[in-house]
Formats: sequence, C-alpha cells, structure tokens
Amino acid sequence: MAKGKEPQGAASDRDQKKITSRAEDYSQWYIDIVLKAGLADYAPVKGCMVIRPHGYAIWELMQKRLDARFKETGHQNAYFPLFIPESYIEREKEHFAGFAPECAVVTEGGGQKLEEKLYVRPTSEMIIWSMFKEWIQSHRDLPLLMNQWCNVVRWEMRTRLFLRTTEFLWQEGHTAHATEEEAREETLRMLEVYRSFAEDVMAVPVIPGKKTEKEKFKGAVDTFSIEAMMQDGKALQAGTSHYLGENFARAFKVQFQDQAGTLRFVHATSWGVSTRLIGALIMAHSDDQGLVLPPELAPIQVVVVPIYRSDDEKQKVLAEAHAVRDALKGLRVHLDNREGQSPGFKFNEWELKGVPLRVEIGPKDLEKGQLCLARRFLPPGAERKEFRPRDAAIAGIPAALDALQQGLLERAREFQKSRTKTIDSAEEFAAFFQAGGGFALCHWCGDGACEDALAASHKTTIRNIPIAEVGGGGAGACIKCGKPSPRRVVMAQSY
Amino acid sequence: MAKGKEPQGAASDRDQKKITSRAEDYSQWYIDIVLKAGLADYAPVKGCMVIRPHGYAIWELMQKRLDARFKETGHQNAYFPLFIPESYIEREKEHFAGFAPECAVVTEGGGQKLEEKLYVRPTSEMIIWSMFKEWIQSHRDLPLLMNQWCNVVRWEMRTRLFLRTTEFLWQEGHTAHATEEEAREETLRMLEVYRSFAEDVMAVPVIPGKKTEKEKFKGAVDTFSIEAMMQDGKALQAGTSHYLGENFARAFKVQFQDQAGTLRFVHATSWGVSTRLIGALIMAHSDDQGLVLPPELAPIQVVVVPIYRSDDEKQKVLAEAHAVRDALKGLRVHLDNREGQSPGFKFNEWELKGVPLRVEIGPKDLEKGQLCLARRFLPPGAERKEFRPRDAAIAGIPAALDALQQGLLERAREFQKSRTKTIDSAEEFAAFFQAGGGFALCHWCGDGACEDALAASHKTTIRNIPIAEVGGGGAGACIKCGKPSPRRVVMAQSY
Repeated sequence: MAKGKEPQGAASDRDQKKITSRAEDYSQWYIDIVLKAGLADYAPVKGCMVIRPHGYAIWELMQKRLDARFKETGHQNAYFPLFIPESYIEREKEHFAGFAPECAVVTEGGGQKLEEKLYVRPTSEMIIWSMFKEWIQSHRDLPLLMNQWCNVVRWEMRTRLFLRTTEFLWQEGHTAHATEEEAREETLRMLEVYRSFAEDVMAVPVIPGKKTEKEKFKGAVDTFSIEAMMQDGKALQAGTSHYLGENFARAFKVQFQDQAGTLRFVHATSWGVSTRLIGALIMAHSDDQGLVLPPELAPIQVVVVPIYRSDDEKQKVLAEAHAVRDALKGLRVHLDNREGQSPGFKFNEWELKGVPLRVEIGPKDLEKGQLCLARRFLPPGAERKEFRPRDAAIAGIPAALDALQQGLLERAREFQKSRTKTIDSAEEFAAFFQAGGGFALCHWCGDGACEDALAASHKTTIRNIPIAEVGGGGAGACIKCGKPSPRRVVMAQSY
Repeated sequence: MAKGKEPQGAASDRDQKKITSRAEDYSQWYIDIVLKAGLADYAPVKGCMVIRPHGYAIWELMQKRLDARFKETGHQNAYFPLFIPESYIEREKEHFAGFAPECAVVTEGGGQKLEEKLYVRPTSEMIIWSMFKEWIQSHRDLPLLMNQWCNVVRWEMRTRLFLRTTEFLWQEGHTAHATEEEAREETLRMLEVYRSFAEDVMAVPVIPGKKTEKEKFKGAVDTFSIEAMMQDGKALQAGTSHYLGENFARAFKVQFQDQAGTLRFVHATSWGVSTRLIGALIMAHSDDQGLVLPPELAPIQVVVVPIYRSDDEKQKVLAEAHAVRDALKGLRVHLDNREGQSPGFKFNEWELKGVPLRVEIGPKDLEKGQLCLARRFLPPGAERKEFRPRDAAIAGIPAALDALQQGLLERAREFQKSRTKTIDSAEEFAAFFQAGGGFALCHWCGDGACEDALAASHKTTIRNIPIAEVGGGGAGACIKCGKPSPRRVVMAQSY
C-alpha cells in the first residue's frame, strides 16, 4: 500500500524549516503546521493518520471538557462493538444509504471466510438501537441518555489530516425519550453544549442552525450544526445534533409502555463531534509562525526558558526557573532545561507548538528581580514582551492566560465579522466569492431547486438556517428566484 | 450472525432474580453478576460485548488511575491506526505468528475489493514501529515513551464477557531506549506500576514474575506478568510487560546515532492491561449477593437511601438526605430518591451493583439525630450496620471507605494465602488440584519438557517465576524430574 505523501515529514517537528505562509499556499500552510508542530503524521495505511502526542494531548483536553458537559447534562458513557453485521445494514438501508459505500468490510476472521460480512462502524446507530430494543420496555427506562467515545471508519478518497481521514476518533451521543418535545429539547441542549464548548473553550465563534433537507443526515428528521469560519473564509461544520424522530425506533421496533399502559415508539436524538475539531482549532487561530492555541486547550500553557552563559549563571538561573515553575502549580507548566539548544531555538520551537505564554529568565532578570513574559499572540492592549517585578509577574499569569483566551475569541469574532456580509443580489454574491468569500447571509425561499442552483455557481452550500436571526431585516426575497423568504441563511464554501 | 446466548439478559439489571451461588455454578455466578449488575451485555456480533454504563464507569476510573501513573513515569499518549497492511504482517511473520490466525481482515473498502488486505490490529507493534523508524534518528530522540488507549480485535472461538472477547479495550505502552539496561529498567518499572495499581486500587493481590520461554510473547526476549487468584483458585494474568530487546528494531531497521556517532539498534519494551481487569475485579471480590467493589473503583461510593411513609416524613427525610449528600462533596455520592420503589428494593439493587457504603435515613434517625451506615461487606472489626450521631457519621465516611478498601485487600490476601501451598511431590500436587487447587509453589528445573508434562496432568501451567522468592527454601529439586531448581515457580490452572 502506498504511503501518504511527505512521509519524511514525520520527524519534522525537530527541523525548524520555515512554514509556508498562508498567503503563499493556505493548504500547504495547514499541513506544515500539523506536521511541524508534531500534531499528526501520515500513517502507512492509506487515508489514515497517526495522532502524535502534542495533537493527542489537545484531544484529551477536548474530551475532558466535553465529557464533563455530557455528564452534567445526565449522560452516561458506554461502549458498543466496532463491527456491524451485514444483516443490520440491510435492515437499515434507508437510513444507512449515505454510509454503505463508505465502509470498510471484514470478510475474513480467525483464518476463515465469514458467513456474514461485518462492517466496521462508520457510526453506531445500528448496534446501539439493537441494544436499546433490549433495554427499553417501560416509561421508567426513559430517558435513556448514552454517549460513546470511539474510533469510526469512513472510506475516504481524498483525505486531509484531521479534517477528513478514513479512521477518526469521535464521540457519538444516542438518546431515547418518551416524547417528541423532550427529544427536541435534548437535540438543542446538545447543540448548545457544542456551541459553548466551541466558543468558551476553543475560542472559535460558531453559528448554530438547522441544516436544509438536502444537507441533513438521512436518518434524521432535523439536523442542526454549528458552523465555524476558517481563515480562508470557508465554513467548517464543527458539530452536529440530530432529532431522529421515530425513525430508528420504528426500524428496530423500540417501544415502551407509557404510564397509561399504551405502547409507543420512543423519540430519539444523536449528536457528535470528532478529531476534526483539532483541524478547526488550527485553522481558526494559527499564523505563519505556527500553531496558536487557546490556553484552555494548550497542553503546555506556560513554558519557562532559562537563559545563561557561564556555569555560575546557569546555577542561579536554573534555581529561579525551578522556583517559578513550582510557583505556577495548578497550571500546565513546562520548564525547558534542555542542554545544547539555544534559547532562540527553544523560543521558536514553543512558538511553533502554540504555547500561549513564555517566561524568560536570564541573569539580568535575576539582578532586577523581574521576569520577562512573552505572548504567543497579541490581544488588544497587551504587549508582546513585558517585564514585570517577579512576584507580580507570577501572580498575574492566570489573568494573562484568561486575557489570551478572551483575546483569541475576540480576534476570531472580528475576523468572522469582517468576512460576513448580507447579500441580496446575484452580482454581489458573485463578487463576494470572487474576492475570497466568507459567510454570505442571503434570503432563500426554501426550495431545493434554488439551493442546487446556488450551490452550483460558486461551490457554495447553505451551511445552515441560523437559530438566532442573522443579518437582520426579517423576511425578504429569495436571492435566486425572488419568492418570499422568512429569514436569511448562511451560504459559504466549506471543508 | 447468531446472537450470543442470553440476549434477554439485557434488561436484567432491573429484575432482581437471585444470582446463582458460587458453590452451585461458579461460571454462571460470574455471568449473572456481569449481566444483573448492568456491567456488560451480549452484543449482536459474535464474541463481542457491549460495556454498559456501570461497567464503563469502572473502566473510566481504571483508566484515570493508570493514565496518571503512566504520565508520572514520563509517558505520552498517542493514537495509531486501527488497520495494519498485510505487507507489514508478512514482514513480521516471526513475531506475529501467534496472532495471524486470530485476526479480523478487511478485504473490501469504499465498495471495492482492496488491492492489499488490511488486518484489524490485534496489537499495534507493526504500525508503531513503522512510525518509530521515522521518529528516531539520534540519541536525543530517546527514550521514546508512548502509550495508546484503544480497541483491539482477536478472533476468539470461546468467549466470556470481559475475560475473553473478540473486541476489547486496552492500553498498550511502547517504548524505545538507547541501552538494554534502560529498557529492562522500564520493563520492570511498568510491571511495578501494574502491581501497585492491582493492589492499591483494585485491592487484588498479585504475584509479579517472569514468564517461561513457552508462555512468553513470541516477539519478546522476556515477558513479565502479574498473576492474581480468583475465588475458584484459578490464576488470572492481569497485566504483562515485555522486554523486546532489538527484535522490532531489527525488523523495522530502527537505528539511532549515539553520542559517539555510531549507529545502534534501539532496545524496546511494550506493556498492556485490558478490560479483562474488570473480570478480575468481579471474580476477586464479589459474593452471592452480587458485585463487590473497592471504593477506589466504585462509580458510586456512597448511596443515600431515604425511608419514609407519610408526605410529612417524606419532606423532612428528603431534606436531610439532600443535606447529607451535599455534605459528602468530593466523594462519588448518589441520592436514590426514586418514587415507587421500596427501600428494600433499593438496598438490594445497590448491593447487587457493589456500592461500598449505604447511608439510610428514616424518621427515627431524624428524631435521634443519627445516621445508619450499612457496609457492602465486613472488614475485620467492623459491623454490617452502624448507627452513629449524624455529624460524626458524615465525618467518618472517608475513613470508613478507606477501611473497606484496605479490608478488601486483606480479605483477598488471606484468601490467596489459604489457597497457596508449597508442593514438592507429584502426589501432593495431584491431591492439591483435585481438592480445588490454587497456587502451587513448586520447584522446576527450567526444562520445557518438564513444563509440558506438568501442564498436561491437571491443566496447570507455570504462571510465572516470581521476582521475589516465594515459598522459601532457596534451591531444590524439580517436581517432575528431580534435577536441580534454583527457585520455586507458581503453578495454577488459569483463565
């Protein structure tokens, strides 16, 4: 099997070759950051990636924060099998239609040809609903609120590290409820969990909204998404939450006895986010020097770099560096006391890896009783390098991290705003996307034919119909056909 | 594909049918506990299981404690692909010999027959070492200390929930070092991590030791294991740590330049534990009433059960129950305020699920200003039910949990001791295993022929050669052939 391109990029988080600039080649810039910051690497299996420690540590922080939110909202984790028997796929052809050609299929096991093929899960509805049938009999069993952290496989022809890989890691929530109302509430509750995670933890502003009929998950009644804007103006779908109605309940005959003794089908939801979020994180914040991370998701929030020449200086500076590190307990701090690497080399390396705050300590700082703080990026009003009295500097670090977190979100919001436009004519629409594009807030009549026609012109799609009105002005006329439109939708090119 | 047996067991954590006793049918007792305590369920895929929320919560606690230990010892998590190209298997035939017939094989992907088959990982050495080759060039890249949490698949003909399933969850550590000495140190360091986890967290006493040539992992120079004793006297291998020598380094040509500029092969280790540990936990501690959990791994450490008849009582008792729950912040506490279930039903359910400590609160307790504490099992000197003044009872709960944790370990140690015997003749050996068996500490000359002969007689194997001498007495004569033996080994039947 052919290796992915750039296999030699593997060791490249050690080499500090220049990263391709965004202006020069945006796609290459993204790949350079993934490889050189040591986030992921091409694997020897077509379309698959290796998530390296720095990338996996970000995923662990994401998991921790999301998992806490899932548990706070009453969900329990469980684990379901990797394989789906072919007969289940046949039974669920209608809802599985979009997935079947994308699957990896096991046909041999234990040295023999299998009587029934096993599909490697592209998503777990089939298995989970076969179990829900066993577990749900009475209204007392509801709501059933489950989540699973696992790997899934979707056979992809054109892959990109984190954004689209044959195997990826994700979580999939699956819930069953007594009523449509409860299930719809759950769908929007989890969408809100994703929104707050994206904005408060990832510092990535998103637009929550409903997908069109054409773009929704085939097994769902309604699909909702959060859409983020990347630095090239393209949209990235960062999470989805589905109201499944009775679709899976009917397919798997999952009924419960309500309090009056009547048998009813349950109403369901499912929702998920994946390692794709790491791609979104990279593309939302990073710059031509490398990765930029919000402190909430930075595996190392503060790096301490000692600077010295003589052995005498070394001893004193290292003692202070250890003391500063110890004073920052509770934060994720790393003391880079490697020998044989210059401070400048270390500065570059940690900037490339996105560490939000650097503390530099040299003999002069010791003399003056100060520390030098260097920020990975500049929130408004902050300085790139700042000298402050030692104790005040240490005491101020948590606030400095908060300011970086907030500053990053504001910067991303400003960027999104600068590339979002209310557009009411085909000419404006064409000009907007020829000039780089972004989020076009347009009126749409709701007709699939207009949607298709709009999609064709500039490879744009309707990303979603925002829950909160955007662009203002209430009702209007469809940008394509002029028929009445109740509100604006978000149109964009996308990943 | 045929379903596993007892699919209707699925909903059985609700029904409180009696658990088969250990005396009656030990195997059925085990299955009853797994199903009725809601730990796992049979999946619709042959040999696979569903880990239900109560079981998965135990796994999460295990992961958390192990992961902290791995990180403290300098390891980083990463994620490698699920699939291994067939050419890698061919290249590593020698070390992979034991696995190849056990694999699930993907032959179709994206709707087409694959040019090269993909094996679903039974373990990840092949993929990881192909990446180590990319990442290791210089002594500065060493040691490389990695761990992965993931699912693996081994095609099993005879499966048992948690103990042996086609798919299971595990962690696999993989490390590369500059010298044999360092790699051997690492092998024993991780064995010690497993030992302390088993004893201090799981409350399961284990014997750390070296596997014989016959029983070791084929890819290893030396394999070490920890062996625990179950309540039927059988051994369960609860974790393994391998010194791999240069085996994988040579197969994958992984060399580094040492400080003198010489190219050398790296020395390697690997080590792992799996969801099998949950099976060990169940079989080490549980009784005929259900699951018994050590507080360290109990998803619910304390359950508060309110007892009332009238509405007036209900109001007062529930207020106190909430206050008690809130006073126990920091512990994993659950207030069972379900309507329509009797206190007796709740007592049974939480005993079945292994909750270590129950707080009962009724109107009389309110009057007397007391709480009733009920223990899931009796450490020496403790009482099953204890009435104590309210505030003293609350303040004493952490210590009561510690005493349960310690008491469980001591009880398991006593049991292991009672079923361990130094044995020096074939007659004694036969009598021991006919009478139920356990750990037989025997002299063995080191000859594979004697090992085979001993294995044949009572389905026993040499579990390991303990690192710390067991049974005393130093050297002796092989129980089979009478030739000199340097020390005793542990012989037992096993899972």
